Amino acid sequence: MRKSEILVEAIEYIRKFSGDAFVIKFGGETLLDKDVVDSVAKDLILLNALGIRTVVVHGGGVEISEAMEKFGKKPAFVKGLRVTDRETMDIVEMVLSGKVNQQLVGVIHKHGGEVIGLSGKSGCLFEAVKQKKKKVDLGQVGEIRNVNPKIVKTQLDSGYIPIISPIGLTREGDTLNINADTAAAELAASLKAKKLIILTNVEGVLDKKRKLVHRLTVTEANRLIRDDVIVGGMIPKIKACTHALKNGVERTHIIKASKHAILEEILTVTGTGTMITRHKVKGG
Amino acid sequence: MRKSEILVEAIEYIRKFSGDAFVIKFGGETLLDKDVVDSVAKDLILLNALGIRTVVVHGGGVEISEAMEKFGKKPAFVKGLRVTDRETMDIVEMVLSGKVNQQLVGVIHKHGGEVIGLSGKSGCLFEAVKQKKKKVDLGQVGEIRNVNPKIVKTQLDSGYIPIISPIGLTREGDTLNINADTAAAELAASLKAKKLIILTNVEGVLDKKRKLVHRLTVTEANRLIRDDVIVGGMIPKIKACTHALKNGVERTHIIKASKHAILEEILTVTGTGTMITRHKVKGG
Amino acid sequence: MRKSEILVEAIEYIRKFSGDAFVIKFGGETLLDKDVVDSVAKDLILLNALGIRTVVVHGGGVEISEAMEKFGKKPAFVKGLRVTDRETMDIVEMVLSGKVNQQLVGVIHKHGGEVIGLSGKSGCLFEAVKQKKKKVDLGQVGEIRNVNPKIVKTQLDSGYIPIISPIGLTREGDTLNINADTAAAELAASLKAKKLIILTNVEGVLDKKRKLVHRLTVTEANRLIRDDVIVGGMIPKIKACTHALKNGVERTHIIKASKHAILEEILTVTGTGTMITRHKVKGG
Amino acid sequence: MRKSEILVEAIEYIRKFSGDAFVIKFGGETLLDKDVVDSVAKDLILLNALGIRTVVVHGGGVEISEAMEKFGKKPAFVKGLRVTDRETMDIVEMVLSGKVNQQLVGVIHKHGGEVIGLSGKSGCLFEAVKQKKKKVDLGQVGEIRNVNPKIVKTQLDSGYIPIISPIGLTREGDTLNINADTAAAELAASLKAKKLIILTNVEGVLDKKRKLVHRLTVTEANRLIRDDVIVGGMIPKIKACTHALKNGVERTHIIKASKHAILEEILTVTGTGTMITRHKVKGG
Amino acid sequence: MRKSEILVEAIEYIRKFSGDAFVIKFGGETLLDKDVVDSVAKDLILLNALGIRTVVVHGGGVEISEAMEKFGKKPAFVKGLRVTDRETMDIVEMVLSGKVNQQLVGVIHKHGGEVIGLSGKSGCLFEAVKQKKKKVDLGQVGEIRNVNPKIVKTQLDSGYIPIISPIGLTREGDTLNINADTAAAELAASLKAKKLIILTNVEGVLDKKRKLVHRLTVTEANRLIRDDVIVGGMIPKIKACTHALKNGVERTHIIKASKHAILEEILTVTGTGTMITRHKVKGG
Amino acid sequence: MRKSEILVEAIEYIRKFSGDAFVIKFGGETLLDKDVVDSVAKDLILLNALGIRTVVVHGGGVEISEAMEKFGKKPAFVKGLRVTDRETMDIVEMVLSGKVNQQLVGVIHKHGGEVIGLSGKSGCLFEAVKQKKKKVDLGQVGEIRNVNPKIVKTQLDSGYIPIISPIGLTREGDTLNINADTAAAELAASLKAKKLIILTNVEGVLDKKRKLVHRLTVTEANRLIRDDVIVGGMIPKIKACTHALKNGVERTHIIKASKHAILEEILTVTGTGTMITRHKVKGG
Repeated sequence: MRKSEILVEAIEYIRKFSGDAFVIKFGGETLLDKDVVDSVAKDLILLNALGIRTVVVHGGGVEISEAMEKFGKKPAFVKGLRVTDRETMDIVEMVLSGKVNQQLVGVIHKHGGEVIGLSGKSGCLFEAVKQKKKKVDLGQVGEIRNVNPKIVKTQLDSGYIPIISPIGLTREGDTLNINADTAAAELAASLKAKKLIILTNVEGVLDKKRKLVHRLTVTEANRLIRDDVIVGGMIPKIKACTHALKNGVERTHIIKASKHAILEEILTVTGTGTMITRHKVKGG
Repeated sequence: MRKSEILVEAIEYIRKFSGDAFVIKFGGETLLDKDVVDSVAKDLILLNALGIRTVVVHGGGVEISEAMEKFGKKPAFVKGLRVTDRETMDIVEMVLSGKVNQQLVGVIHKHGGEVIGLSGKSGCLFEAVKQKKKKVDLGQVGEIRNVNPKIVKTQLDSGYIPIISPIGLTREGDTLNINADTAAAELAASLKAKKLIILTNVEGVLDKKRKLVHRLTVTEANRLIRDDVIVGGMIPKIKACTHALKNGVERTHIIKASKHAILEEILTVTGTGTMITRHKVKGG
Repeated sequence: MRKSEILVEAIEYIRKFSGDAFVIKFGGETLLDKDVVDSVAKDLILLNALGIRTVVVHGGGVEISEAMEKFGKKPAFVKGLRVTDRETMDIVEMVLSGKVNQQLVGVIHKHGGEVIGLSGKSGCLFEAVKQKKKKVDLGQVGEIRNVNPKIVKTQLDSGYIPIISPIGLTREGDTLNINADTAAAELAASLKAKKLIILTNVEGVLDKKRKLVHRLTVTEANRLIRDDVIVGGMIPKIKACTHALKNGVERTHIIKASKHAILEEILTVTGTGTMITRHKVKGG
Repeated sequence: MRKSEILVEAIEYIRKFSGDAFVIKFGGETLLDKDVVDSVAKDLILLNALGIRTVVVHGGGVEISEAMEKFGKKPAFVKGLRVTDRETMDIVEMVLSGKVNQQLVGVIHKHGGEVIGLSGKSGCLFEAVKQKKKKVDLGQVGEIRNVNPKIVKTQLDSGYIPIISPIGLTREGDTLNINADTAAAELAASLKAKKLIILTNVEGVLDKKRKLVHRLTVTEANRLIRDDVIVGGMIPKIKACTHALKNGVERTHIIKASKHAILEEILTVTGTGTMITRHKVKGG
Repeated sequence: MRKSEILVEAIEYIRKFSGDAFVIKFGGETLLDKDVVDSVAKDLILLNALGIRTVVVHGGGVEISEAMEKFGKKPAFVKGLRVTDRETMDIVEMVLSGKVNQQLVGVIHKHGGEVIGLSGKSGCLFEAVKQKKKKVDLGQVGEIRNVNPKIVKTQLDSGYIPIISPIGLTREGDTLNINADTAAAELAASLKAKKLIILTNVEGVLDKKRKLVHRLTVTEANRLIRDDVIVGGMIPKIKACTHALKNGVERTHIIKASKHAILEEILTVTGTGTMITRHKVKGG
Repeated sequence: MRKSEILVEAIEYIRKFSGDAFVIKFGGETLLDKDVVDSVAKDLILLNALGIRTVVVHGGGVEISEAMEKFGKKPAFVKGLRVTDRETMDIVEMVLSGKVNQQLVGVIHKHGGEVIGLSGKSGCLFEAVKQKKKKVDLGQVGEIRNVNPKIVKTQLDSGYIPIISPIGLTREGDTLNINADTAAAELAASLKAKKLIILTNVEGVLDKKRKLVHRLTVTEANRLIRDDVIVGGMIPKIKACTHALKNGVERTHIIKASKHAILEEILTVTGTGTMITRHKVKGG
């Protein structure tokens, strides 16, 4: 492929997406790889320079568990959700809003980006309610009842890249732990984002033969779950994408957080991971 | 004093200060008293409703020391400054940006305020350099080299009450611990704030006879320091006020963080604590 | 009551009313008391400083009768309405627009307010028609057919306190005498004012036992009229309030024009006179 | 002259003056002639429609003297200035602001203009001081110390034709009688008006042979005064023009207030009266 | 008629039309008369100065035929439409957009106007389709399918007088010859112009007795066509007017392109040619 | 080079140039190659989509000579300048403004661009004077005295790509033939364009060994002219670049008008032709 063809292709996408909002979920072990974090930071800054309004929602499960152990507490999970008593909630919040979030702010600043770190509590971004009690009480685990995106729009209008920790706030001022995939999907819907991009440590969705699938519709994705081809941690990511698509987001992507993966996924026809849409799309 | 006289007096002040920025330093043990925190939150919301642009810079020394001990680290100080190795810095940041800051956000939200929690790293608000090495290496302790107030103005223009943790960022993206009194003074100067208000757990500055002094000039304050009337923790507060006054802030106040103390200090002639100005002022 | 409680209460009202328009009817003998006029002027300026858009409609019956006598004419009334032949109309207009209005302008200017005196003819503010002829021809007495509030809004938007004389203009350019209470009520409705405040020389509405009633609904007020508890000059004031309430004004007040009475009525829960509303209201 | 030539000539003037302010002095006996007042009103409305910002300052000496006699007071003058004790001042103000001003408002409204009547006290338009005492105390006679044109600009920006009575206000709120020619000249200077037009009951300035002079420079006018060709009531008009020209007004006119005289004076090369300028002008 | 009456009449029209758009068709032999072109140019500039947004659509048939003969091609017509093979189309475009249009630009510039020459292709102003093939293939002759007036509005908003050649563009980028009368009518409709003015070399529409008719309704005009009173080249002009009137243009005029004819037609009651409207109109 | 590296490089340039104006000279034989014209059109549209404000100045010498011969006139040149009698000027203008310009408009429209064709006479863009008479009278050949860029800025602000023919206008409305390279350079300077790009039919500037030179300073270019390495038609292009650089244009380029050459020259470090700058530049 000639350079100029790559340029022409990329400019078509830039023209298409300029002014749009993209929500990027950045979590899991990839957060621990300094090179990956540097590369993601650079891509965000470049997209921002093109007029694409990028917003990051991050996770931080590994760091939380580490910190709990330092505090002498043993992490526990029920169906993938962390049991979060009040003391754990304090640790979760300190790690997410006080450590992971702040590290991302530092890295993006170092590479020249204008960046703001926000908790989902600020401006009551993630208004939440406690999850209904089940057999095991999960404690301070919440579900988003309402997203107030004004605070994020304010930052985007002023040119900042917002980095958001998935913490929710109840009407009474109580603090709740929110799943980061869900938070990203809800925020994307509320911002009327064009894309939700979930960064992971695998290439994307694989088919029965373990080959990367570049494009999926919601229906196809559901079939792959039913057929046990998509399993484990990939399922909640697919659910988050499906939720976003149902609520107005145009395209969702699950891609590996490797060097400039975001740029290539967005600005080339072939992309690098899996794009999930409501219906089959033509072109890029 | 008749009700209407109180009203007339208060309106004169409201007229005078509407549209101005006030920086409020909130720290120390007072942060631990739930009633005081509730009262300060309400006052901030009321001032905000009057068109006064309130910004909070908070401390959190007590909570930091507590957390360090949980992590099995022993707090150490040299001339009032915390020895801050890299591991301590992580704890400082988690506690300030991830705990104290977030608690204030929650309380102000609960009382109906639009609030945003920010680290001094966001938007590179507090651009800092490491303190020069002295006998004892203090580690990640920094001094502010430059304040970039744009991020705070953005929030004020959008109606939010910004709550700021005193964390600094170097050009290289390194994180530093900043003294909260100094951070508040520098921010006030950079915002061209009309007032810097330092909340403490004493009534204000006391004279030789341990009587509260309502008004002080910089010269008088310096004399009281020279004469060992002002001592201990009050000295850095006086220094912060002096620095702010030299850099354009009109009036500085040191008052006890008790119920509605901020309102009374600002909206009545007599006030509740000590007001320090460059020169003697007439009227309120 | 502590100072700070008064302040908190007042700020709640300021927050509630900032940006709203209030129409104040100022007439009768109270206009002749220099101290009262000074106090009203100061209150208007203070309310204006709080962002409350105050408009005054004044009367002037006493001064008109005085001037008529100087001109050798004998004042005559039919059911409270002045018989106004053309010569009397000239005197009415000279006294209202050329004397009472101008005196109020002078006093408010003296106390530091930005003030503009307007006749109801300017900008055809009060478009009027002649009252239908009854047994006795009242002459140049009119009823408002249409209020053109643009001219008042222009002044409010530019920061002026408008002082308005209750003179009406027909399509043909004829000048008519308008009842000041009615003019104030119509103007309040047309401006979508939050409050109509009628200043009088009594405390407010009194009940059977001659005790001041702080709050009344329209229904209750009508019953008091039916029961002959409200009588005489108070009846047209109640009618003006009722008319304003029916046409969108939220609250109406009848209070004694004493020192800072307006401020206390507006900024405290208890108030000083009688507040009349469509329905019972909770709180202040 | 062909129609189209008249049109071309007029459009050149319209193009030249659109957006400019003109101050028109309207006084003396001409105010009493209904047809003249109607014609002036129509011309003002037409000029306004062309984007010319017209402002009227009116006199009213005849009506004042009439009213004084009704009140049993005898008018007295010293060198053309009315002796104005406090009682007289009340009459002057009632007649100017409450009668003459209001009549002009009514007439302009009748012909379809948007009009506002203002006293020179409103917005402290004419800030004045008492004339120094001379042999005979003239009482409430003032000189303009400062013009605050904001209130007039506000009305012009909103499309109103302001009609202004020449009443001044001292800092202490005292009311003073101001000469109308002077008030018009000062207002024209303060508004940076392009033209000051003084309407009279004569054709304009006449030369030795009693022939109308169409154009005069300030120097020529002064010579005609020195040579006793210009005498009597024309002198203060010339002085007012000279003062306006010295303070930035481009052209001044003295014309007879006859049918459409203003239009013809402004929109044709020949004009109808006398134009006075600093220097000789070419063209129209 | 007195000067001032002419002025009053003209100002009424200026007031009525200021801010409106007028489309002027300028074509035929009149384009060859230097004096007429100068006069039209001056009228356009004067109307523009009055805030009337003038747009010119020009023809150029005589010049096209001349140029064709120089190129050795013989002009041919079918029912008044030029047979336009591709080579002829090139000549048509060169003459219209490269000669006639540019000459008008030059003349208007010389008289001081801000002018822009545009082809109907720019901004795809005249989106066209080829005329359906009839017996004789007319070649590159087109009909307007859609007008995109944005490009004309942009120039009007910036103060330019747009001069437009009647060339159309197909979706595929093919160039077509468009009838100038039709183009002017379509543009007038699309701009919601108040007037369409067609300049010709006759006085206007004549009745049976060869007398000029000043006013016509569409119905009357159609009857005159049916009765063979209106014949020849006047018919397409009447059709263009009728089309414009049906599509929202208020008044259409057919006048002789003589000295200041446009000004007189627009700014006087009597006018100089024929005004055609949907219904009878009163007044001017 | 990996795709993502190309993207990163390109985005850096996009970020750098977004909002800037580029002037592109497009002339000579390249205008006759349909594929090249298509490719240039696409590049302009893509650059425009990136927020780069592109303006084209075109030539057309080949087409002019062809048309002259059809008209039976023999082209003649003196030192590369066309002898332009009045008849030739008419042909020049018809070909440039009526043919070449319109073809470019058609092609850019076909590819989806919003485009406007302008003569340098419109808005008096190129205000010119006749060249001083030399031995041979060149006739209507002009030099630019003043560029009025307002008309071009208006189009850029409205999103159009302006295509400009190099025709000048004298104060008297006379039309002159302007050299296209010079016109492009003068326009670039007047627009404070970041780049002037001259498209030719050779790769760029070649050194002694006939190898393409990627970067040149003005000094180096002048030396190559002195040493007869740069000769013939390349010299005026170098002069145009030098003139632009002296008058504020940052970078000038001479490149071959081949497929996507503009994109590659602008968005990659290596580029495709020769970049000439005042001083040596680092990076791209």
